[in-house]
Amino acid sequence: MPASFKIPSHMRAVVLHTFDQIESLVVEERPVPRPQAGQVLIRMHASPVNPSDLAFLRGVYSKKELPVVPGIEGSGTVVAAGHGLFGRMLVGRRVAFAASNEGEGTWAEYAVLPAQNCMPLGRSISLEQGAMLIVNPLTAWLLMAEAQRNGRRALVQTAAAGALGKMIVRLARQRGVTTINIVRRDEQAAALRELGATHVLNSTAADFEALLFEVCRMEDARLAFDAVGGELTGKILSAMSNGARLISYGGLALEPCILDPRVFISAGKSIEGFQLGRAMGRLSLITRLKIVRRVQQALGRELQSEIQARVPLKDAVRGLQQYVHNMSAGKVLLVMNRAEAE
Amino acid sequence: MPASFKIPSHMRAVVLHTFDQIESLVVEERPVPRPQAGQVLIRMHASPVNPSDLAFLRGVYSKKELPVVPGIEGSGTVVAAGHGLFGRMLVGRRVAFAASNEGEGTWAEYAVLPAQNCMPLGRSISLEQGAMLIVNPLTAWLLMAEAQRNGRRALVQTAAAGALGKMIVRLARQRGVTTINIVRRDEQAAALRELGATHVLNSTAADFEALLFEVCRMEDARLAFDAVGGELTGKILSAMSNGARLISYGGLALEPCILDPRVFISAGKSIEGFQLGRAMGRLSLITRLKIVRRVQQALGRELQSEIQARVPLKDAVRGLQQYVHNMSAGKVLLVMNRAEAE
Repeated sequence: MPASFKIPSHMRAVVLHTFDQIESLVVEERPVPRPQAGQVLIRMHASPVNPSDLAFLRGVYSKKELPVVPGIEGSGTVVAAGHGLFGRMLVGRRVAFAASNEGEGTWAEYAVLPAQNCMPLGRSISLEQGAMLIVNPLTAWLLMAEAQRNGRRALVQTAAAGALGKMIVRLARQRGVTTINIVRRDEQAAALRELGATHVLNSTAADFEALLFEVCRMEDARLAFDAVGGELTGKILSAMSNGARLISYGGLALEPCILDPRVFISAGKSIEGFQLGRAMGRLSLITRLKIVRRVQQALGRELQSEIQARVPLKDAVRGLQQYVHNMSAGKVLLVMNRAEAE
Repeated sequence: MPASFKIPSHMRAVVLHTFDQIESLVVEERPVPRPQAGQVLIRMHASPVNPSDLAFLRGVYSKKELPVVPGIEGSGTVVAAGHGLFGRMLVGRRVAFAASNEGEGTWAEYAVLPAQNCMPLGRSISLEQGAMLIVNPLTAWLLMAEAQRNGRRALVQTAAAGALGKMIVRLARQRGVTTINIVRRDEQAAALRELGATHVLNSTAADFEALLFEVCRMEDARLAFDAVGGELTGKILSAMSNGARLISYGGLALEPCILDPRVFISAGKSIEGFQLGRAMGRLSLITRLKIVRRVQQALGRELQSEIQARVPLKDAVRGLQQYVHNMSAGKVLLVMNRAEAE
């Protein structure tokens, strides 16, 4: 960034006016926000579209008031800071970050957020890779840590052909953990097997439940990561061995989970949830920094994200439509300040 | 029992030939079974009808082959033992016991079961009280221990007007824990309030969900005991505070639980199951004996069971019909060997 760089008064931002309609997103001119105490101002480089962004646009998770700038994670350069030591230390640094639960999101040319949400990027990590550091790689890392803490040798996962699912497959393979992967289309299976997936099952096949039951019994599956919900959650829980745990981290089906209470009572199984912010909040600062460093080291390998398209901010709606059309073809990356970013 | 007592060759037993029909139960003449190694033969005194017996008759839980003698718990006197020290020590003792998961149940004049399933009764405990020692009192005791281990000051429970629900209310009151009780009929509410129930809500009322949400927020409810399942499970989980746990121990609604996955993900709530046999199996023998002693001490007080009818074994079908008609009026007790039992 040139030394003469000056923060402009206005910027472009994607703005959501009504939940439920991707088409109702508009790119607007807005004043560049000012960082308050404990906050930093970031000149955005890029921000991906994640499944959790789509859920946010549909109003599934949000308590935020409209109109609002969507976008959950991104990368960029810190160009100003409000009062506070950590924020001031970050000025000039390339960072990855998650938007705060309250303020505006990351689909804009500039973003203001708490300094503590920023993770400085190592020299070998590009801003493009950094834009996809948090939602998928950190989640995959922490879920796998959960599997290993419990000494699990086999795990079931849904949405296995998605970016996060593929990371889990690669991490599990590297660590000798068997994966039982559930997808919705046969053509997703081959790609997963190439990555090292042990079993791939299509949930739309007529014999799915019988196969799932058989594979779970063969592998003594006692842990599942579920991003889908709906009836599938109940089928997995019923198929797994007694005492199994299911960790729900997404509701892509947009339908309630349907579960036979006997899985809890007679079979001693359980369900809990995973949310990245809460999981990170439980860790000490030291542990968090250690994990972020290890995740950065694995970014180009097990935790690699595929990119299907780089789209300028002004074409955000088109980019979103492309992503919704084929979510397992890779991330769509919104690119904000391409020219000067690196 | 007279010293001249001789084990007869035949006995009467209730026998289930088809799942789903109380009316298809028949009282039959059967040979008195012989205890094998590690088993004892019990001359039955009485056995209650519990909700879990009804579930068994409907085929909800059972892996047992038909025809079979139903009945989950009971009391009686050990009259013979197979090979094994503990069994031989029990001969002549008055005991409470749970049927084994494999063999025949307790609705018969004689029963054979593993010696380790027997709990010797203290002198102050009648065989009638002892017949209802395990399913409800032990479950109530262990669930409350769970509440106290987590330092919970408020708990939600369903089927609150049942025998177990009332025990929870009395134990909670004694220990200063607030109870939020869910019933299905208004006339059950007054009786519960008299026992010390803090809040009583009718799940069939139009404003039930709104009230439940309000009370859970007011009391910061983070623990629930659920014997019902179905949609109610999801409503409770949604109403409770973030981080709440629901412990499912019954499926009286005979319907799957329906749950918004967001309760797990954003709100960090969880579900697990409770089954008496599994919970007891996790405890050391010393702890188990200690708990059984304390439960016996509380049998006439917090852990009292109300009895709506004592029915001779030959009238078992009529007794079951009476119980199904009004489950919250108290237990129906099948009495086998009334004349000589005490």
